[in-house]
Formats: sequence, C-alpha cells, structure tokens
Amino acid sequence: MQPRPAVESRAVLVRWMNLTDANSAGFVHGGTVMRLCDEAAGIAAIKHARTRVVTAGMDRMTFLEPVHPGELMTFKAAVNAAWRSSMEVGVRVEAERVHTGEVRHTSTAFLTMVALDDDGRPVEIPPLLTSEPEELRREREAQTRRRNRLAERDEIRRAREN
Amino acid sequence: MQPRPAVESRAVLVRWMNLTDANSAGFVHGGTVMRLCDEAAGIAAIKHARTRVVTAGMDRMTFLEPVHPGELMTFKAAVNAAWRSSMEVGVRVEAERVHTGEVRHTSTAFLTMVALDDDGRPVEIPPLLTSEPEELRREREAQTRRRNRLAERDEIRRAREN
Amino acid sequence: MQPRPAVESRAVLVRWMNLTDANSAGFVHGGTVMRLCDEAAGIAAIKHARTRVVTAGMDRMTFLEPVHPGELMTFKAAVNAAWRSSMEVGVRVEAERVHTGEVRHTSTAFLTMVALDDDGRPVEIPPLLTSEPEELRREREAQTRRRNRLAERDEIRRAREN
Amino acid sequence: MQPRPAVESRAVLVRWMNLTDANSAGFVHGGTVMRLCDEAAGIAAIKHARTRVVTAGMDRMTFLEPVHPGELMTFKAAVNAAWRSSMEVGVRVEAERVHTGEVRHTSTAFLTMVALDDDGRPVEIPPLLTSEPEELRREREAQTRRRNRLAERDEIRRAREN
Amino acid sequence: MQPRPAVESRAVLVRWMNLTDANSAGFVHGGTVMRLCDEAAGIAAIKHARTRVVTAGMDRMTFLEPVHPGELMTFKAAVNAAWRSSMEVGVRVEAERVHTGEVRHTSTAFLTMVALDDDGRPVEIPPLLTSEPEELRREREAQTRRRNRLAERDEIRRAREN
Amino acid sequence: MQPRPAVESRAVLVRWMNLTDANSAGFVHGGTVMRLCDEAAGIAAIKHARTRVVTAGMDRMTFLEPVHPGELMTFKAAVNAAWRSSMEVGVRVEAERVHTGEVRHTSTAFLTMVALDDDGRPVEIPPLLTSEPEELRREREAQTRRRNRLAERDEIRRAREN
Repeated sequence: MQPRPAVESRAVLVRWMNLTDANSAGFVHGGTVMRLCDEAAGIAAIKHARTRVVTAGMDRMTFLEPVHPGELMTFKAAVNAAWRSSMEVGVRVEAERVHTGEVRHTSTAFLTMVALDDDGRPVEIPPLLTSEPEELRREREAQTRRRNRLAERDEIRRAREN
Repeated sequence: MQPRPAVESRAVLVRWMNLTDANSAGFVHGGTVMRLCDEAAGIAAIKHARTRVVTAGMDRMTFLEPVHPGELMTFKAAVNAAWRSSMEVGVRVEAERVHTGEVRHTSTAFLTMVALDDDGRPVEIPPLLTSEPEELRREREAQTRRRNRLAERDEIRRAREN
Repeated sequence: MQPRPAVESRAVLVRWMNLTDANSAGFVHGGTVMRLCDEAAGIAAIKHARTRVVTAGMDRMTFLEPVHPGELMTFKAAVNAAWRSSMEVGVRVEAERVHTGEVRHTSTAFLTMVALDDDGRPVEIPPLLTSEPEELRREREAQTRRRNRLAERDEIRRAREN
Repeated sequence: MQPRPAVESRAVLVRWMNLTDANSAGFVHGGTVMRLCDEAAGIAAIKHARTRVVTAGMDRMTFLEPVHPGELMTFKAAVNAAWRSSMEVGVRVEAERVHTGEVRHTSTAFLTMVALDDDGRPVEIPPLLTSEPEELRREREAQTRRRNRLAERDEIRRAREN
Repeated sequence: MQPRPAVESRAVLVRWMNLTDANSAGFVHGGTVMRLCDEAAGIAAIKHARTRVVTAGMDRMTFLEPVHPGELMTFKAAVNAAWRSSMEVGVRVEAERVHTGEVRHTSTAFLTMVALDDDGRPVEIPPLLTSEPEELRREREAQTRRRNRLAERDEIRRAREN
Repeated sequence: MQPRPAVESRAVLVRWMNLTDANSAGFVHGGTVMRLCDEAAGIAAIKHARTRVVTAGMDRMTFLEPVHPGELMTFKAAVNAAWRSSMEVGVRVEAERVHTGEVRHTSTAFLTMVALDDDGRPVEIPPLLTSEPEELRREREAQTRRRNRLAERDEIRRAREN
C-alpha cells in the first residue's frame, strides 16, 4: 500500500461551550471534552485509513485547567503513528476566551483507533509518511507510549501471577 | 485525617443505551462511554473525599468490544489509591443484552481525580484503607501505573532535549 | 408455558442528575423521573416476557419530595403480577445525596406493560412465580389496583350514561 | 379568594416528534409522552394558581395506540378540580399524521399538582369555577378518582396490617 | 391540479422554553427560535404539498425582543404563496408569560420551501387558493419579497462583474 | 473609537453531524444549520464589539444542497459591515465528506447582530476597517442588502396603507 502523509490526516473540531456542557461546579464537564476528543480522533483516523474505525483505547489524557461555558474549544487531531491496522491519534485541546481572543492549551489526549472492513474485522491501513521534524518526534513518542503500555501490561500480569 | 475504607467509595451508574448514543456505524459512541466513566469516577471520588473534585487525567482506557443500542450498560467505580489530594479511580464497564441477561466486560478505565476546596485549590484527602486482597492488588497496580506515567513523562522530556 | 420467578425480572437504572434535568424552580423535572420509571419498567417487562413490550398505562405514581441536580437517582423495577399478555411493573425511586450517602425514597410508580410479537400484536407471557412474602404481597396489591381500576372505569361510564 | 373559571387554566403544547423521541422499536417513547403531559399539566396549574407548582402524582395514564416519529402531538391540559392547595389536571393527547391531517386520541393522563409559595410550602389556591356541563362532569370524575385513590390506599394499608 | 385553500396549510407548534434553550446571557437562543420556525414552516409546506419538502432559504427573519426560559412560545405558520414547486411560508412567533397570560409578538420569519418527489427532485404542487383580504395581502407581499430577492441577486452579480 | 480590522472578527465552528441532527428524510435539519450559523455569527460579532450581542435578524439564507449525517460542517463567519451599534455578519457553510475530503459550499447566511451594554441597551461599536478587495466587496454588498431591506419595508408599508 502507498504510504500517506501525516498531514492528510489532520482534523479539527470547534465548539462553543454552553451551560448544558457544564457540571454543577460551573466547569465544562471532563466527559464532554473526552467525547469531543474521541470524535476528532475518529475523523483523523478515517482520513488516514479511508475505512470506518473504532476506538480501541485512550491513553494519557490530561486536563491542565478548567474551561467555562462561553469559551470556544478547538480539538486538533492527527495520526501520530500507524501500525498494521491500528493508529495512535494525538488530540490537542485549546480553549479561547471569545472577548479577549486569549487562547490556552487545556488538554492533550492519545487514542488508539482501529480500521475495520465492512464486516467489522481489522483491515490493513497505509503506512504513515512522516517527514517534518515535528512529525518524526510525534511518531517516536507514539512508539514510546505503545512500548510502555505493552510493558506495563506484562508487569501487572506477572505481579498478579506471583 | 481518619483513613476511609475503599469500599465506601464504590459507585455505580446504569444506563439503557438508545439510538441517540450510537454512531453512524450503529455502535454506542466511544465518547459516550468515556463520558459516563468520568461521571462514575467523579461520584466515587466525591464519596471518598467529601469535597468537590475535578478530573486531572484518564489513563489506559480500553474498548474490548462494541456495544449496541438496546443494551444495558453498568459503570462500576471505586477509588484504587489515594495520595495527598489526588486519587486513582478504576471504572469497570459491563454491557448486558436485556433479552438474555448475558453480561460481558466491555471497557476498563483509570482516572486521576483531584479534590478541591471551595476556592478551587487542591485540598488534602483521607488516606485509603485497603484490606481485602482485591483492594490491595488494585492499590499496588495504581502505584505501578502512576510510577510508569511519571517515568514516561521524564523519558519523553529527555528525548526532546537531546 | 413455564412460570418464571419474579426475581428474574428485577431491573435497576442509576443516573446522576444534572442541570439539564432540572426545571426553572431548580428541582429535577417530574417528567424526567416519569421517563426513567418507564425505561426501568420496560427493562423489567422484557426480562420477564423475553419479547418486546409497550407501555399501556401508568397508575398511582407519587412524588414524595423534590430531588435536586447533583443527586444520584436509582430506579428499581420488578414485575409484580402477570396476566395473559400484560404485566404490572412496580418501580421504586430513591435519591442519594452523594456527599453524605443519605438515601431517601422519593417516588413509587406502577405501570402496565404489554408483551408484543414481531407484528405488534399482544402475545402470551409466562406466569409469574412468586414465593417470598414480599413478592406475594406485591402480587396481591397489584390485583387490588387492577380490580379498582376496572371498577372505576365502570363507575365513571355508568355516571356518564345517567 | 375569588374563584377562577376552569377555562382560564387551559394550556396546549404541540410538538413534532422526531427520531430522537423514538425507542428501538420505532415508536415514540412512552416516557417522552409522560414528560410532555407533565409539562402541559404544569402550565395549566400555574395558570390557575398563579404560583409555582410541583407534581405530586400521576394517575390513570393510558396509552391507547402507538405514535410514530414524523407525527404531530398535541397535549391539551386543563384543571378539572381544585382543593385547598392541590389540583387535578387532565391532559388529552392527540397525534396527527401531517400528510393526511388525520387526528387520533392516543393518551389521557390525570395529574395532581400542588401550589407552592416561595419557601416551597403548599399555599392556598382559588376555588375552580365550573359551569359548562363538560366542566361539571370533569370535576365530578376528578372527585371520584380522588375518593377511590384514598380508599385504595386505606384498603392496601389494612391488608398489610392483617 | 386542484388549487388548495391557504387555510388548510396552517400549522402551529407550542413549546415551553427551559434553561437548556437559553444562552449564557439568559435569553432564549436565537438559533433555537430559527430551528422551530423551520419546523413549523416544514409542517405547513407538507400540509399544502402533501409531499416531503426541504428548506431552500430563509428571508427577512426579525427578532423584536428577547424571550426568557419559562415562557411559552407559539409558532404559527401558513403558506403565503405557491409557485411551480416552491412556496413561501410565513411564521409568526409569540411568547407568553405563563403567570400573567400576557402575549407579545417576538419574531417573524419567511421561508422558501421546495416540494420533492421520492427521488429528491422538485415536484409540481397545487396552486394556492387565497380569498380572505388577509390572505390576498400575504400573497402579494410574498410576491414582492421574491421579486426583490431576485432583483438583489442580479444587482450584486452585476456589481461584481464591473 | 478606534476602527478594528475585519479580519479580527473571523470565527469558525466545525461540527461532525450525526443521526440526531437529521430529519426523517435522512438530511441534516435546516434548523440545525440555522442554529449553528447563529452561533458562529454571535462569536464574530463579539470579537468585533467586545460586548455581549443579540441577533436582530437573519436575511437571505440559502440552502444550496442537502447535507448528510457523517459529514463535517464548517461555519465561517466574519463581520461584513458595522453601523452605530449593529453589524452584518456573513456566514459561509461548507460540508466535507470525510472519506474523500471533498468539500462543497452548502449555505450562505447574513445576520444582523446588535451590541448591548450590561443593561441590555444598544451600545456604540468600533467602525470596521476594511482594506482587502474581498472585504470592500463584502461591505458594499452588506450596504446593498440593508438599503434593499429598508426599501422593501417601506414598499410593503405603503402598499398596506393604500
């Protein structure tokens, strides 16, 4: 299969948060942010795989500071690394105070998405073509996260067996 | 502060999934599951801390198999480990086919929740009292995940600096 | 048909109420509680009948005291009595203040559900097997409610004809 | 207090049902209809009492036939009888097939609403002025339903005590 | 085709606005009002055309004064003029303060709807039969709006070409 | 007041349409598109005025072709012209088929937004600084639309008086 440039997978969602997105403490609900990260990651994965996709996992999502209703949230997703039928998609979340235009980075998430054929079985996807230094760094860090995730799974399994 | 038994933090949510929870492929949206994990984790954290809480991160969430509208989903949360003002909450997600009563494990998620005072600053929480073998195992594995998360952060930072 | 034990029809829904569930007076909307009672009753009826079901009526629903956003609501449903193709399902509603764990009984509802075949026609269902004193009491009271409902219908019809 | 004519309490809601109002069998969800009956009854009660109100109970709601997405639903409510601080509100539900204009009666519900002062305590309301034969019949039947409800409560209580 | 009287296209929607319909300034969201105007216009157009319809445009919608959650909104729609396969539908929006019964006119909208056959192609519709002075006035003004809209399109096109 | 460049008012919203946004014909509901145009216009107006704003009217909105669930919709808004306290905001709507990346222009809308002070009274806003040919053209066309709108109002008023 022909490799596909990372830049072609870029996806963006932008939403104006309102009262129904907030919890009783007046902050935008963490679960709302997760849901939109999942949507943005799904679009990026479809753009790379050109098939339908499912979420297989979410890793290392952080919430750096609270967001309020009335702020504009942007979810920027791109495929960081591609394996046989799965991909790591990174999502950067930013919030903007509309009156001042001030933007801050509020969350990062890394999701594993799997490409499926029409019968729901994993299907091979194109390799990811990375060339810019930024893309290479992201691919390397995705490999690190995957290696650590598999190692942790083994570490916990071994500890349970002893 | 008086330690509080892990069992007192147990929280359960149960929802009947319908068409509005599904994506265009006919499966329950991964983001819907994330959002409900976040809700269940929030309840468990409030039960332990007796303060308001925010989500600081989500780690190692897995989606083992798809869920369909019409299934009943159960989200079982409990505090696994408590540090000064943060906690790891584990959430086990199960889906039940109502007609047959057949239940399967569909997701697991680990969230870091932080207790806040009324001004929104982190506040000290009670230690977690774990006694059952299952509770001790969960606390140990939460420590493993935390240690690995911090180590990974350092590993990635060092790689960026070189 | 083989009778089916009442205990097998037990169904539970648990929801964390938020601002969008509240009316302008700040209480959880009575209609939201009704809707969730209907959902819980539907699950219990499906568990007994193993067919699809529709709501034929709701009787004697009470609202004992108001519920606020931020409380956890539990809907416990079970089939109380079964006739040829219809059932009475009882639903007990409880609200819990999460910070204190204090639980109170806030509503009770009795719904009549009808089992349908694939063409939408009423279909015969298994008899209900009741054995515990609590189950026997519920079945007897369901018969009382049904007898009274039919008597009232006749009473009103006769009064209209005079 | 000055009596207030029943006709002044009349309230109507009209909604176009869509896919998100339907259950997996393709019918409009019974709980959606209950919720809108509760809304319509609330408006009628406010028009009579001119205070805020809460739902105290729902009685004798029937579902005569299924409704489909794409149909127009009308909820016609009016106060049937008024006591010291509570009212019975009747709601008639009709569904219309938009293409043909054909209208059918699909549900009836009777709700008990209570008028509250600003501190949430029951407050006295104006007597209901009924004059038309239809209004007198509705008031009489509301009295019958109330009498039967109280009698049934006693009947069940006595049976439990024996 | 047999002409169809304008009165047969009349359609009404009535909604009780709640907190989830409001923006952060506490007013009912303009977009919510637009969406319900579109629904009401769709029903009126279906009643005239007896086919499925799509919105082709919205013109001259005004917002005369703000509406608050807790108010009852009524959307009155009727076909003003019919051409080969398109119609102008006028929608009058009113808001009522429930406690006082005071009604005020808050918006007017004019929408162009197109009748479609099952393959999604425009299809011929019956002429509109107008007889009352009010109906004749509305039809005349719809012609004025259409003539001006087409003239404006030409005016802007010519200005761009120079 | 210091004029503010048109480019500073640019606002973008991006949404992934799903089944709950569609009508029974399977297309994204025109009302959903209107609502999001209103949101995007509101953000652009706030960016220019730096006050809160309300929608005073919507003009000349067109729906060029249907959009389906699963498509990505982009709403690009900018202030076209500013008067004393009101602005015309133009919104361009595009839909993208995610699998192919194919983008098409599906709607255009022109909204009049008014800047308000904290007491809800119209407040003066900065003049709009337009310099690019594209900006100058948009401002000129906004003036044309406004002039025509006022002329049409007079034309209809005079016709009613005769």
